[in-house]
Amino acid sequence: MTLKSSTGNFFEDFEVGDELLHATPRTVTEADAALYTGLTGSRYALYSADTFAQDCGLDAAPIDPLLAFHIVFGKTVPDISLNAVANLGYADGRFMRPVFPGDTLRAVSEVIGVKENSNRQTGVVWVRTTGYNQEDEAVLTYVRWVMVRKRNEASPAPDASAPDLPAAVSPSALPRPEFSAEGYDFNLAGSPFGFEDYAVGEKIDHVDAFTVEEAEHQIATRLYQNTAKVHFNQHEQSQSRFGRRLIYGGVAISLARSLAFNGLANAAEIIAINAGSHVNPLFAGDTVYAWSEILDKADLADDVGALRMRLVATKNRPCADHPLRDVDGKYLPEVILDFDYWAAMPARG
Amino acid sequence: MTLKSSTGNFFEDFEVGDELLHATPRTVTEADAALYTGLTGSRYALYSADTFAQDCGLDAAPIDPLLAFHIVFGKTVPDISLNAVANLGYADGRFMRPVFPGDTLRAVSEVIGVKENSNRQTGVVWVRTTGYNQEDEAVLTYVRWVMVRKRNEASPAPDASAPDLPAAVSPSALPRPEFSAEGYDFNLAGSPFGFEDYAVGEKIDHVDAFTVEEAEHQIATRLYQNTAKVHFNQHEQSQSRFGRRLIYGGVAISLARSLAFNGLANAAEIIAINAGSHVNPLFAGDTVYAWSEILDKADLADDVGALRMRLVATKNRPCADHPLRDVDGKYLPEVILDFDYWAAMPARG
Amino acid sequence: MTLKSSTGNFFEDFEVGDELLHATPRTVTEADAALYTGLTGSRYALYSADTFAQDCGLDAAPIDPLLAFHIVFGKTVPDISLNAVANLGYADGRFMRPVFPGDTLRAVSEVIGVKENSNRQTGVVWVRTTGYNQEDEAVLTYVRWVMVRKRNEASPAPDASAPDLPAAVSPSALPRPEFSAEGYDFNLAGSPFGFEDYAVGEKIDHVDAFTVEEAEHQIATRLYQNTAKVHFNQHEQSQSRFGRRLIYGGVAISLARSLAFNGLANAAEIIAINAGSHVNPLFAGDTVYAWSEILDKADLADDVGALRMRLVATKNRPCADHPLRDVDGKYLPEVILDFDYWAAMPARG
Repeated sequence: MTLKSSTGNFFEDFEVGDELLHATPRTVTEADAALYTGLTGSRYALYSADTFAQDCGLDAAPIDPLLAFHIVFGKTVPDISLNAVANLGYADGRFMRPVFPGDTLRAVSEVIGVKENSNRQTGVVWVRTTGYNQEDEAVLTYVRWVMVRKRNEASPAPDASAPDLPAAVSPSALPRPEFSAEGYDFNLAGSPFGFEDYAVGEKIDHVDAFTVEEAEHQIATRLYQNTAKVHFNQHEQSQSRFGRRLIYGGVAISLARSLAFNGLANAAEIIAINAGSHVNPLFAGDTVYAWSEILDKADLADDVGALRMRLVATKNRPCADHPLRDVDGKYLPEVILDFDYWAAMPARG
Repeated sequence: MTLKSSTGNFFEDFEVGDELLHATPRTVTEADAALYTGLTGSRYALYSADTFAQDCGLDAAPIDPLLAFHIVFGKTVPDISLNAVANLGYADGRFMRPVFPGDTLRAVSEVIGVKENSNRQTGVVWVRTTGYNQEDEAVLTYVRWVMVRKRNEASPAPDASAPDLPAAVSPSALPRPEFSAEGYDFNLAGSPFGFEDYAVGEKIDHVDAFTVEEAEHQIATRLYQNTAKVHFNQHEQSQSRFGRRLIYGGVAISLARSLAFNGLANAAEIIAINAGSHVNPLFAGDTVYAWSEILDKADLADDVGALRMRLVATKNRPCADHPLRDVDGKYLPEVILDFDYWAAMPARG
Repeated sequence: MTLKSSTGNFFEDFEVGDELLHATPRTVTEADAALYTGLTGSRYALYSADTFAQDCGLDAAPIDPLLAFHIVFGKTVPDISLNAVANLGYADGRFMRPVFPGDTLRAVSEVIGVKENSNRQTGVVWVRTTGYNQEDEAVLTYVRWVMVRKRNEASPAPDASAPDLPAAVSPSALPRPEFSAEGYDFNLAGSPFGFEDYAVGEKIDHVDAFTVEEAEHQIATRLYQNTAKVHFNQHEQSQSRFGRRLIYGGVAISLARSLAFNGLANAAEIIAINAGSHVNPLFAGDTVYAWSEILDKADLADDVGALRMRLVATKNRPCADHPLRDVDGKYLPEVILDFDYWAAMPARG
């Protein structure tokens, strides 16, 4: 009898050029949006109100790009990271098309790099993942690399091949924002500050904070149909290094982005992901704070620009002093996330 | 550089006559209704089944009035109560129009009273808040007053001005109920008792109880986009008087109303709020019980009446003996809520 | 004054032939499906994506049959099992019709057996419960029996009458599956294995696991409008035998079925329930694992068959060795569920 259940792919199973068609397409609905609000507290008007989105030229409020990202990401887990030791990074993420309630997402990944580690026990796998809607249009794409266990230490090492990746999505490669700034209402959006009001180098403490509970991150991560067992299995984790369930990094990104509303209310729409590191683990009971730094600015149109930002999340440490690294350049132990992205923002004009 | 994030308004920032346009309009959907069911256990048929609502002359099941209330209330928090020390009361709340899935709510508040406290550190602010739908029709309105910290103790005191508020919404001012009693099915609604079966002075123990978890009240309060940090930030609260996150008072109201189904299944629709006090704090791990007292009755039509009721919620104390105050007239320590409202109820005819 | 709140029926209140029209009809929506995904992690493609369901000849993704079951079951609790000591079993459950978002469910039960226990304090009540949609079409039916407390030990015993129940739904009585196998996409469904690949006697370890939190099972059980107080009232339960809230058995069934995806991804649709026992209690903090055994196979059409399976869930014990009973034939203490059902599965052809 063939073994029917899967324990996931190991390093040896990945070959450059492999295409992985991930299982379980998912129709995204208003309910996912409401749950996302309940789980993250997001308040960006563009994703909260049909009327607001319609005034910006959209048919209805789209799904938050990060929610679409987590759903696409979740589909890849059973095939890519079930035996991952660490999620090492993201690059060249772009959000090409809005996702609306009723759209069905599926995910496809291509293996674009493999490199065995010198310990022969693990290797790094690079994949480009693309999410498609029911019209087979690409809605988002990103590169991710993970360290994956080998099934058998004695397996021969493949030819090492690491892809060339941009340090950041260049302004010319940025997708067009979903919204038109023409009908944008700064009052309803919750902040008077537009694109011209932010300066490169500016740092913003987002003030607010959320304490995370086990039930919250588990519900969120299951909503994304992400199956990585480190998030769900306390019985097994109790024998692990941390002794605890690890919270999915996407939960930290979404909480930090929700907190960023206070200071960046008009930067609702993420259009690109440049890089991201989950630098320390987040556990239930921890309180997440966040701050942002403006890294770059780019014009997208007369009345819309893009802000490149670092979004830093901490645990159990307020962000008034913008904590990041110690004097030796090492991330502080309270820092959990260093995320580099572009968001579109209307100009006041 | 201008400070981009907000720490909320302080007492000095409020002036009688100020109009506050609150941020983040919100399209309310079936998903909010489902989450409300999951978080409160509400079983009122009018808000549970389209067919039941249609038999009562509605197009579909509306959103529970308390859910609409919490969403409107939530929008006001960033502008009104971020620096509140206490939520002091509600008055003259009226639900003028049903809210249906797909409607978009926004909130506007007018400052109608300010009064500095003798300690010069805080003051009381009265606001009238109105929720509007996407047609700019008022769907609900209420007065609320809160004690707010001053930014600077030395700031001059404004002229004290407290509004005249009705002790209760008078029967002639009650909104018309959403439903018509003609097609009302008492069997499906879960109770044979109609308007004529309730007597002023009658007290009802609602028997059932719910233990509240951190994840539950946080998800609910975020769903309402309520940002008051006392509900969410354990790291900061651990240094507070209680050392704990406080549960949003609206969560207690909704749990108590859900429990009230057992005894008041046909009083589904709240049409007015007369008063309300959160008399003791509720924390995660506490078990909420509830009882009601019929305070008044008013005819609304031949086959529908309104019951004015006190809804009392307790923590960790069953309500068979209708606990409320001690011999000195002080609220018992187990009482968390004393809520005075009108609900419409069909007559058996 | 008549007592308005209910403490439920006792053994004496049930008479063979009684028909109980349960309260609170419920419109099931996409939101229930999303919440079910968030609470159970279910990944069966048929219930996850409209496109997948449409390729299988359906108008849209139906509601997971277990979600419909829990909602129908929940309605019966206030009338049948509020004073239950134990849920003893299920039999002859059949899913006759798909439930789609927008359908409204109501439940009716007929008492088909009563039998007082020799201790005179309790008795067994058998009911057949049927769920109907808004067109009054039966969507599912099942028999359940529970041990219910007597109100008064001295009440006379009724004539004992236990119904004849099938040990399993016979292949000829199995409902037709909702989906057509013609357009079924095994790749998107997540497993290459079809009906012909499973053999009677085969056992499958589902590998994955979920740790359950109080907030999760409470939200799920309230979503089903199930009011059994053992699930919700820690204050009262702290004085009970276990000292804890018991998790609703349906939560265990749904978690186990979600885990069964890994090994049975193409057995999405439950078409019949043969039997089921909640053999040990499940508590918050426990980690649920599961395994399955193929008990029987039946052809339903050229390209679809039915697998009769035992689904066993354990707490805090992995299932690689398929734990079930000890040498004396007693269920192991880690086993929480022994569930016997039929699911439809497409053939590879």
